[in-house]
Amino acid sequence: MRNLTMLMDYYELTMANGYFVKGFQNKIVSFDMFYRKNPDNGGFVVSAGLEQLIEYVSNMHFSKEDIDYLRSKGEFSDAFLDYLADFHFSGTIEAIPEGTICYPNTPIVTVTAPVIEAQLVETMLLLTINFSSLIATKAARICRAAGDMDAIVMEFGARRAHSYDAAVLGARAAYIGGVAATATVLCDEKFGVPAIGTMAHSWIQFFDTEYDAFRAYAEVYPDNCTLLIDTYDILKSGAVNAIRVAKEVLEPMGKRLKGVRIDSGDLAYFSKKLRKMFDAAGMQDCKIVVSNSVDEYLIRSLQEQGACINSFGVGERMITSKSDPVFGGVYKLVAVMNDAGEFVPKIKISENIEKITNPGKKKLWRIFSKETGYALADLISMSDETFDGTKPIPYIDPIKPWKKMSFHDVEVKEMQQVIFKDGKLVYDKPSLDDIRNYVKIQLIEQVWEEEQRFENPHVHYVDLSTKLYDIKKQMLEQYDSLEGEV
Amino acid sequence: MRNLTMLMDYYELTMANGYFVKGFQNKIVSFDMFYRKNPDNGGFVVSAGLEQLIEYVSNMHFSKEDIDYLRSKGEFSDAFLDYLADFHFSGTIEAIPEGTICYPNTPIVTVTAPVIEAQLVETMLLLTINFSSLIATKAARICRAAGDMDAIVMEFGARRAHSYDAAVLGARAAYIGGVAATATVLCDEKFGVPAIGTMAHSWIQFFDTEYDAFRAYAEVYPDNCTLLIDTYDILKSGAVNAIRVAKEVLEPMGKRLKGVRIDSGDLAYFSKKLRKMFDAAGMQDCKIVVSNSVDEYLIRSLQEQGACINSFGVGERMITSKSDPVFGGVYKLVAVMNDAGEFVPKIKISENIEKITNPGKKKLWRIFSKETGYALADLISMSDETFDGTKPIPYIDPIKPWKKMSFHDVEVKEMQQVIFKDGKLVYDKPSLDDIRNYVKIQLIEQVWEEEQRFENPHVHYVDLSTKLYDIKKQMLEQYDSLEGEV
Repeated sequence: MRNLTMLMDYYELTMANGYFVKGFQNKIVSFDMFYRKNPDNGGFVVSAGLEQLIEYVSNMHFSKEDIDYLRSKGEFSDAFLDYLADFHFSGTIEAIPEGTICYPNTPIVTVTAPVIEAQLVETMLLLTINFSSLIATKAARICRAAGDMDAIVMEFGARRAHSYDAAVLGARAAYIGGVAATATVLCDEKFGVPAIGTMAHSWIQFFDTEYDAFRAYAEVYPDNCTLLIDTYDILKSGAVNAIRVAKEVLEPMGKRLKGVRIDSGDLAYFSKKLRKMFDAAGMQDCKIVVSNSVDEYLIRSLQEQGACINSFGVGERMITSKSDPVFGGVYKLVAVMNDAGEFVPKIKISENIEKITNPGKKKLWRIFSKETGYALADLISMSDETFDGTKPIPYIDPIKPWKKMSFHDVEVKEMQQVIFKDGKLVYDKPSLDDIRNYVKIQLIEQVWEEEQRFENPHVHYVDLSTKLYDIKKQMLEQYDSLEGEV
Repeated sequence: MRNLTMLMDYYELTMANGYFVKGFQNKIVSFDMFYRKNPDNGGFVVSAGLEQLIEYVSNMHFSKEDIDYLRSKGEFSDAFLDYLADFHFSGTIEAIPEGTICYPNTPIVTVTAPVIEAQLVETMLLLTINFSSLIATKAARICRAAGDMDAIVMEFGARRAHSYDAAVLGARAAYIGGVAATATVLCDEKFGVPAIGTMAHSWIQFFDTEYDAFRAYAEVYPDNCTLLIDTYDILKSGAVNAIRVAKEVLEPMGKRLKGVRIDSGDLAYFSKKLRKMFDAAGMQDCKIVVSNSVDEYLIRSLQEQGACINSFGVGERMITSKSDPVFGGVYKLVAVMNDAGEFVPKIKISENIEKITNPGKKKLWRIFSKETGYALADLISMSDETFDGTKPIPYIDPIKPWKKMSFHDVEVKEMQQVIFKDGKLVYDKPSLDDIRNYVKIQLIEQVWEEEQRFENPHVHYVDLSTKLYDIKKQMLEQYDSLEGEV
């Protein structure tokens, strides 16, 4: 197994050594991972990447080479390096399952562990969750747009991905978000995401004529023949030759031309022209696949124009989340255990108001309407609070904190599950198909359509329990007028 | 070593099997990798990623598990799978060296090999060059902006990178582009890019007071103490406590506070205020580091405002090239060898005029002014042409093809070097520092300032030899009025 332990920010190690030297290595702390803004100004995020985080934490160890390298930096104490040589994660990690629809400022992952351990997992925790959630969320947008056309979406992005893992894990995340297949072979071999593909322009160019190229392909793959028809001229050459091959090569064998693909030109115009040509040739079952700079906005535009498209190959705009390529998950200290074994809440204030954190060890709940099954709001409470929906649940909307409000007659679900307990993996990870189905079910049964809009989606309510709100308010007041020493 | 052989698009394999079944496996072809548009509408690209491509090609092989997986797809012939089991790359690869400043539509990598081999390297060739060139180019932009301030740039992006390799190889590419250091430890361990870092907000929050946190850090790292001062209040708390620690902890030990970092707030305003406070306290040598959503545009704006910043920590906007996260390198068949051993040029026409390729096996030349040393233009010729600058070089500017023009009294440099010759690695790869210096030297001595502008940069001339132009023109005319069969 690949050892990614050293894929961390250097400051994780300077801080860890600092805690060690100062004798704090057994201090238990709690960190929350959360994000502040939905990508593409969307209504939610499809969380993903937990499986990769589990793999990292399970395998985390410093090799002799790692220790030697660190020693060469001349900044770390020998005792700390000895500690690292025996390092393994002994803490507790709670997280919402992969594929959960989630919202800004809610804890997605919570790590409770000795401070050094909790600090050292930071970079990879953010890397895994940030990237996979970004792509799963983008894929879900693109598939929602295509869904209205009954068209399937295929992931074609490897060549424009941000390096190797992005291609493979990105295709996995895209599958969670709803794509039907990927072009990336390694993602099929490793994760079972169905790999598909037929030909590039080079196949066509290699032969003396486009017809020869189509004919050769049909002869090798009579059962799965999709022809790329835009190398020279889509209508005058590509479509004409495709029909000829269907009639001259495939139909005599009792086979059908499965489809054609175009990768350039006016996709709305050509798809309609092609549909007519193929229908007139008795090829109503010949699918039209398109693949040039597709994203959710182009798909919607094609839909409005009545394009005749059965399938979208989506490349760079999905695998890089081009329109918004940064998922800004952060990892913030929220509590430190005191000598009495109680968690003392911690807060970060910041000059930027949106960077103020929710202090304390917390729990995340989702509130569902008993009547419709839809999610009404998320509720963040302190970790010692519990709700079962039998009694009204008072809460504070942080936007209108002066209003006393409460939930009545609702279903309440605690969102985080225990993944690692005292260093032991206790979580039964779901299959990739289960994760993908979970996304679908939530989008159909639990998430308001108004939250799924691309423009100005409904802002999901994320409320605070009165207890959490009071603690936060008190801490903010306490820091408000201090000078130095805070 | 990690086996990334299967990180390819599925169509590479369907085509390869098709060539094999049809008996074309010994046909020699030539592909060019090039791109069409500079990211961020810039004037050029800093090419990078060749080292990773070399590693991939050198190590390319299909394991038994890979073959078993492919067999399970039911689409590949047994003879082809036997061929794959013995696969190794036997072709020739020419490329411009890493760190070369390059331009749209010029061949960056040229692969000449049996068609199956040339096809199977496509995806990874694009992945490696596209991603690394994207980040090296972005980093060079950001460093150019910061360069005017005499400030150094540090790469801080791992947590927002598009997965693991993007963090590590992205930091490597950023170093090529000019950054001085990275936060990513693994990139230092693996590639020797200096790793740096001090503390996160969590370090401050962990302690009872900000002063305690600063004091503890200064005690552990008296020689390398940079304090993060925006956890509570930059001026009232952070700066006050930093000065106190400098005076109470560091100066009595004969040490100095190295710097402070702010990660939020109005960077121009606070940096000027902080500079005054530190100078007034006799701490003229205390550096100010900033790190909140920095890119070349923000740096330029800070510069215009007279901000007092010594160093920028650049995260998400560099490691994702946020403003333009796709580098669109493509890989196109340009020639097929006929039975007489001659390369027959191939062209792709496409509905989109900018997607028409330059046909044939070619060479790339750069033309320098003898007087100034600056690069005047790039020239693409057929591979059997050669120029040494002793005679006038006639050329065609494809924008104004009716004009007869020629270069006089110039230095001419052939840009591609042979990397693999008949499957053997023959290239002595330069060190990472050599690559980085090569970028610097070109930007100072060879690339016009007008090409380095962020807005409307001078468009570098990319001219065609008259021979190449004539071949291209003839091929376009030939395809112009055909119907079917082309």
